[in-house]
Amino acid sequence: MASVLIREAKEGDCGNILRLIRELAEYEKLSDQVKISEEALRADGFGENPFYHCLVAEILPAPGEPQGQGIGSKIIKKVAEVALDKGCSQLRLAVLDWNKGAMDLYKALGAQDLTEAEGWHCFRFEGEAMRELAGK
Amino acid sequence: MASVLIREAKEGDCGNILRLIRELAEYEKLSDQVKISEEALRADGFGENPFYHCLVAEILPAPGEPQGQGIGSKIIKKVAEVALDKGCSQLRLAVLDWNKGAMDLYKALGAQDLTEAEGWHCFRFEGEAMRELAGK
Repeated sequence: MASVLIREAKEGDCGNILRLIRELAEYEKLSDQVKISEEALRADGFGENPFYHCLVAEILPAPGEPQGQGIGSKIIKKVAEVALDKGCSQLRLAVLDWNKGAMDLYKALGAQDLTEAEGWHCFRFEGEAMRELAGK
Repeated sequence: MASVLIREAKEGDCGNILRLIRELAEYEKLSDQVKISEEALRADGFGENPFYHCLVAEILPAPGEPQGQGIGSKIIKKVAEVALDKGCSQLRLAVLDWNKGAMDLYKALGAQDLTEAEGWHCFRFEGEAMRELAGK
């Protein structure tokens, strides 16, 4: 079986992290929404009070085996472990309604679809709307 | 008109913050989901690397005038201002689909309903599901 190592991201991973963000956005048909640069990823994640924390999976595929199996579950499990260690009581994810593969995985792992179950909607201010709101 | 002062929360506000969280949860018919204590609010928001930041509105109502008008907008505008100052590019909110008053306000202020527009669903792991996931 492919060998997977999950570890904390380092600043030097930011180029690859940005590449993966872009690949995900392309899959989600939302490439136009990726505006972050590698420099911003470095500044936001590796300063004194980081805006985000990040885990990366290093994969050594076994010859002749399909890549990628079970890596999503392994990362989510690790995130849950880190979150509990830090005193968090919940772990939330956002997913597009046509991404059945991801939704089925999250449900199989024990997550609840809050939009379906309770009617939660996500709202977003951005760019011009946000600057107008702030009077800037 | 009522006078409103918006300021950063202090540790001593946590009792009132918890009261407002409970009042909101009651309105949202989700009171059973409020598990946080005043002690946890103090520890999470006022330690070295705080989990949350909080603004409070102090209101001095003018005699004979209805209370509360425009305070939601004032707080959201202040949050947008703080967020831009900190380098954020978006401001997100979660709202229940039957809470038309809140949805109409957010839209009037320039927010987009991402669940409606792009199909985003919120998923949540909590309690037992999260501990099982983490193998704890």
